[in-house]
Amino acid sequence: MAQTGITAPQGFVASATTAGIKPSGKPDMALVVNQGPEYTAAAVFTRNRVIASPVKVSRENVADGQLKAVLYNAGNANACNGTQGDVDARESVNTLATKLNLAPEDIGVCSTGLIGELLPMDKVTAGIETLTAEGALGDNGKAAAHAIMTTDTVDKETVVFADGWTLGAMGKGVGMMAPSLATMLVCLTTDASITPAMARTALAKATAVTFDTLDIDGSTSTNDTVFLLASGATGIKPTQEELNDAVFAACSDLADQMQADAEGVTKRVSVTVTGTTTDEMAINAARTIARDNLFKCAMFGSDPNWGRVLAAVGMADADMDPDHIAVYFNDQAVCLDSTGAPGAREVDLSGADVAVRVDLGAGGEGQATVRTTDLSYSYVEINSAYST
Amino acid sequence: MAQTGITAPQGFVASATTAGIKPSGKPDMALVVNQGPEYTAAAVFTRNRVIASPVKVSRENVADGQLKAVLYNAGNANACNGTQGDVDARESVNTLATKLNLAPEDIGVCSTGLIGELLPMDKVTAGIETLTAEGALGDNGKAAAHAIMTTDTVDKETVVFADGWTLGAMGKGVGMMAPSLATMLVCLTTDASITPAMARTALAKATAVTFDTLDIDGSTSTNDTVFLLASGATGIKPTQEELNDAVFAACSDLADQMQADAEGVTKRVSVTVTGTTTDEMAINAARTIARDNLFKCAMFGSDPNWGRVLAAVGMADADMDPDHIAVYFNDQAVCLDSTGAPGAREVDLSGADVAVRVDLGAGGEGQATVRTTDLSYSYVEINSAYST
Repeated sequence: MAQTGITAPQGFVASATTAGIKPSGKPDMALVVNQGPEYTAAAVFTRNRVIASPVKVSRENVADGQLKAVLYNAGNANACNGTQGDVDARESVNTLATKLNLAPEDIGVCSTGLIGELLPMDKVTAGIETLTAEGALGDNGKAAAHAIMTTDTVDKETVVFADGWTLGAMGKGVGMMAPSLATMLVCLTTDASITPAMARTALAKATAVTFDTLDIDGSTSTNDTVFLLASGATGIKPTQEELNDAVFAACSDLADQMQADAEGVTKRVSVTVTGTTTDEMAINAARTIARDNLFKCAMFGSDPNWGRVLAAVGMADADMDPDHIAVYFNDQAVCLDSTGAPGAREVDLSGADVAVRVDLGAGGEGQATVRTTDLSYSYVEINSAYST
Repeated sequence: MAQTGITAPQGFVASATTAGIKPSGKPDMALVVNQGPEYTAAAVFTRNRVIASPVKVSRENVADGQLKAVLYNAGNANACNGTQGDVDARESVNTLATKLNLAPEDIGVCSTGLIGELLPMDKVTAGIETLTAEGALGDNGKAAAHAIMTTDTVDKETVVFADGWTLGAMGKGVGMMAPSLATMLVCLTTDASITPAMARTALAKATAVTFDTLDIDGSTSTNDTVFLLASGATGIKPTQEELNDAVFAACSDLADQMQADAEGVTKRVSVTVTGTTTDEMAINAARTIARDNLFKCAMFGSDPNWGRVLAAVGMADADMDPDHIAVYFNDQAVCLDSTGAPGAREVDLSGADVAVRVDLGAGGEGQATVRTTDLSYSYVEINSAYST
């Protein structure tokens, strides 16, 4: 049994192939199959109102708390393709259902890549043929994680070993990432025996403090989907809390991997806000800082320009005392009572990790951390010639 | 009489000097004096809750609708300097008041530059000496406009000739610019005879549709100030509407100049949104697109990646029909009914101006335009090593 990724838990097999959807000729389709005996499933989807066709299909199919397989493709988002996009997403699912002898309603589907191009259905159909061919499905979690990459430079997997049961996961996502219910494609699998309600609860709790607080560029995708699939193959029934812990650990690990591989990243920056009334206010303020391009450019330049933190946070929807804000870079005070602290301009930010802490000076127990990155030449380069 | 800028209207003189506040050794202080016979004044200030010391002083002094002079410095924002910052702003005003034999309450003060460094008061005091020396004040509007520049590459002036009276203006601002009551330093002067109430009305109406809809990087400054000063020297009393027209024309011209000189700009991009319920919703949607880094990078790459427009606008707080959004680049349809239009990927965006129009498909009379720019390597370069 593989010890990483989605095929680590019992009851799950996967396959991957190169269907020719990506112009690069790299692997671009993957399939995850839950072999049971249980088929519990839950999902969270993008909050964007412009949603991709596969999201519509997946949302319908997971509503009953059960899925037996999920089909993935990279290189084409199948978003903004009108009714033809919906038809193509359903046809992919129907083709796979026939091959696997499943009902179409028991299949989820995820796409990622360029928005606004029709899926090349001949390639997708041939890809499904390969993914389901004799001997294709097996302990191929790593190959599946590799096939769902877009501008990712490394595949992203994790596994959590619990008390007699296991939770595995894969994910992709390095750009168009901002707090939403989910902000990327992620698939979590477990061989524990859980109910759909337990799965939904664990997923909602974990994503709120992991993927929801990861903000690379303030842009929210049309395709974001996080699935949690449970086979029950171990027969072990964890408590809600045990499940929550495992799902959180996996989501947190994947979120870290996404931050580390973010488009053009040279700095991993965490922004923690305290000293305001509620957690919601703290997250508003942390997001406002994390999305500020001037702040992000300063991080790229290893420039301890704390004034930009104050200028950014002054626009945030959060209780604050504008005369008593404190800012710390890597635990060194650079601003106290909204004024520069001694040595503030000499703080060394040349390392790859920067921890920013901001106390808004309004008292209160509100606290939140957002993970973000710097804004580099590479981010601009990667994103200035994507579709053409 | 000079025919450009703040000294074009009768009753205004200006001076400029190099006080040594900018490390570059370029001009960095300016003075505008209203010689009357009237001293009407109005102002709009930053909405940021973290505000610079000069903003606090100016806000107090303009409250009575009268100012006789405004002192400017560039190279230091005098923001986030605590009570010492307030003391320094007041001391500058007091020094100038003595030199000009004015009451301190009749003087406005504006600073722009690095946040969080104390003003070098010896240099400021010497600068005021030079600005007020025998023969210094005169038709020096252009020199004043030059002295308030920071990362601006050109000075920004305009003049509006009305029926027997004139309105002149200067401005600076190329980064840390986002919709707020005002988003930069601007000084408008006129020789018309107007009341403070008329001045306030004209300024509020004009800034709402000019500076408020200019968004370079989503960052709102701590120092933004727009002054309108009227000398009444012509004795002509325009109607409110005539004044509104002139103030709007000057603000619109300066906003265009700021957009054209924005940090790292290679494209001037206008984003117009229609097909939603209210103007406020339209501006929310236009701002959301204008602030989206993926969209801005696509503009830099002349990439007609309309999918990013849909992904961005799907997160906006505006009524829309997600299945019936239309996008036009330079009047060519690239997306109709939320799906790619024929030839969409072949649209030529290589020119310096890109007009983006988005119809949200929800009907309604809401409409708004936001002016923005692309996100380029130069923007990152300019902003990644600013304070150090």
